[in-house]
Amino acid sequence: MRKLLVIGIGTGNPEHMTVQAINALNRADIVLVPRKGADKEDLAELRRDICRRYLSNPDTRLVEFDLPVRDEREPSYTKRVADWHDEIAATYRDLIREHTDAGGSVAFLVWGDPSLYDSTLRILDRLRDIAGFPFEREVIPGITSVQALTASHCIALNTVGNAVHLTTGRKLKEGFPENADSAVVMLDGDMAFRTLDQDKFSIFWGAYLGSRDEITISGTLSEVGGRIVETREEARRRKGWIMDTYLLRRKA
Amino acid sequence: MRKLLVIGIGTGNPEHMTVQAINALNRADIVLVPRKGADKEDLAELRRDICRRYLSNPDTRLVEFDLPVRDEREPSYTKRVADWHDEIAATYRDLIREHTDAGGSVAFLVWGDPSLYDSTLRILDRLRDIAGFPFEREVIPGITSVQALTASHCIALNTVGNAVHLTTGRKLKEGFPENADSAVVMLDGDMAFRTLDQDKFSIFWGAYLGSRDEITISGTLSEVGGRIVETREEARRRKGWIMDTYLLRRKA
Ligand SMILES: C[S@@+](CC[C@H](N)C(=O)[O-])C[C@H]1O[C@@H](n2cnc3c(N)ncnc32)[C@H](O)[C@@H]1O
Ligand SMILES: C[S@@+](CC[C@H](N)C(=O)[O-])C[C@H]1O[C@@H](n2cnc3c(N)ncnc32)[C@H](O)[C@@H]1O
Repeated sequence: MRKLLVIGIGTGNPEHMTVQAINALNRADIVLVPRKGADKEDLAELRRDICRRYLSNPDTRLVEFDLPVRDEREPSYTKRVADWHDEIAATYRDLIREHTDAGGSVAFLVWGDPSLYDSTLRILDRLRDIAGFPFEREVIPGITSVQALTASHCIALNTVGNAVHLTTGRKLKEGFPENADSAVVMLDGDMAFRTLDQDKFSIFWGAYLGSRDEITISGTLSEVGGRIVETREEARRRKGWIMDTYLLRRKA
Repeated sequence: MRKLLVIGIGTGNPEHMTVQAINALNRADIVLVPRKGADKEDLAELRRDICRRYLSNPDTRLVEFDLPVRDEREPSYTKRVADWHDEIAATYRDLIREHTDAGGSVAFLVWGDPSLYDSTLRILDRLRDIAGFPFEREVIPGITSVQALTASHCIALNTVGNAVHLTTGRKLKEGFPENADSAVVMLDGDMAFRTLDQDKFSIFWGAYLGSRDEITISGTLSEVGGRIVETREEARRRKGWIMDTYLLRRKA
């Protein structure tokens, strides 16, 4: 049976790699490295850097490939994503058949941790239906952007005994969760924190966390919100892309 | 100025250590290793094992010490914990003064990640008030029990585009969060999942995650809840202690 190793690689700092992840990398026959569009070249480069630093097995081969792109003409969002995931699964199937034999192992290097707002595990579910070969999966946890955020700000995620809500920019626009005093917001292209009462929340914001370009800002929304908006726009223009996340905390 | 390194060590698998954590460990002059009561001897042993495996700096010294115990005669829970944290802070102060000089560095090995339901950062806030010496903190993220849980079950934390609630056993008894379809429950000595509608939720449960004694069970609550209760009781009796956590997912 083939083995698919789904390896969390952390969020931009090659030293986020765990010993378990390094060992898994070296157990693989091939490592799949997606080439992204030019703007995300940094991300492909991080994966290559990780292989250069930590790959010591001379038999492990890097296989670079082009990720299929989403068909933006498809009007339904759900179908657009489903079709795209099917295409990625088919790409994986072809690469795995071409580059490994029936007992081979394949490493997928997943940004952050594979459990958090990532589609790799779901795509491997699709692969199961179309692969035509049996396989088992093994997941190796990685440092998430949430932990990179709290580490850089030297803060706890939760207040004593209380809950934490992990959510998206789109959902935050429906309001701050009633049942938590702390919320982490990911996948927010729109700076949804601007829709909240600016005096009632502290924000701990971070972009490119873990990488050399890391930026962090914290304070009451009313005091630092504007600076975050400007900093974010400027950074996104300069680098061509941005990844940012933030923790909001209800003020006492 | 002294440097306090707050290092996440993962949850029982020494291979959860990141390269960043290993490097931080080797930057320390001393590593503080709490001796716990006999039942938690396994946890002190994990810390020693980590030092044996990864400590290569011959100048780094291990300093074992007894953690103060909580005064269970104090009736107020809040005061009991506050007093206890003050005592731990005073212990840290004394150890740091005794074993390091003004430019020295100290490693604290924190279970999982320092941001998640852990009091080390809060105790260092108290230390700031009583230390009598200046210091800066540096936090190194670690693999949490949440990621160890999802990795062992090969599952995502969130469903597509939806929120995740991180909460405690005590809070879960107030009901399953309305604003999420997935909830992670920690610090639950009471198996609070039994208070939910047993047909409406799937559970992904794990104990001693990451360690050799890891146990995982998953399924619909009505089908596996009883087995989890028995397994948990039996394991706790056998080992003298248990750490478990679980993800609940609302069924479609
Ligand atoms: C598709 S999700 C993947 C999350 C990833 N699996 C993890 O564990 O962090 C991408 C989102 O994660 C957050 N993110 C990922 N890496 C980040 C970084 N280095 N700095 C800030 N935010 C980051 C951003 O909110 C981004 O929109
Ligand atoms: C005081 S909190 C510390 C959490 C830790 N900082 C982390 O990042 O996972 C202790 C709770 O974490 C969970 N936990 C910690 N380690 C665990 C493990 N190895 N297996 C299962 N649950 C664990 C349990 O819910 C336990 O009650």
